[in-house]
Amino acid sequence: MLKVNEYFDGNVKSIGFEQNGEQSTVGVMAAGEYLFNTGAPERMTVIKGSLTILLAGASDWQTYGQGEAFEVPGHSSFSLKVSTPSAYLCEFLN
Amino acid sequence: MLKVNEYFDGNVKSIGFEQNGEQSTVGVMAAGEYLFNTGAPERMTVIKGSLTILLAGASDWQTYGQGEAFEVPGHSSFSLKVSTPSAYLCEFLN
Repeated sequence: MLKVNEYFDGNVKSIGFEQNGEQSTVGVMAAGEYLFNTGAPERMTVIKGSLTILLAGASDWQTYGQGEAFEVPGHSSFSLKVSTPSAYLCEFLN
Repeated sequence: MLKVNEYFDGNVKSIGFEQNGEQSTVGVMAAGEYLFNTGAPERMTVIKGSLTILLAGASDWQTYGQGEAFEVPGHSSFSLKVSTPSAYLCEFLN
């Protein structure tokens, strides 16, 4: 029911859950650099800390702090730089 | 570094992390009723969904929705009623 996922040798961990048929995860990223691929489009909201991201095809890195959100298209990717362990909510959009 | 915890037969799962010496967890609670004991005082913020809580010694249940927070004293307890899977941030206060 609550599904724990681990990525990048355990440097990113998340817990997946469902509300009214909508899939979301909350997770934490340790400091590091990551590349994620998307299936469904998703909205990422920073819960604590900050995430610096580069969307596929974009030329500028952007930093999002606590309470800020960004969306990632489906079947795309984004790069992340994380300077301090940071928590996020990822909501899959349909 | 990122520590996964499970409670209540896996109906509550959390990921613990540290920022600048401050301990926090993000987690998800499946629908159900729970009783948690506190060590350190903590601040709970609802990330998605809602939590209905009764602090030890209080007489009224209170419901907190997305973005709302409540604090729990140290060495105390609180009861929770959760009607839909809900995500939270728990920050331990020193």
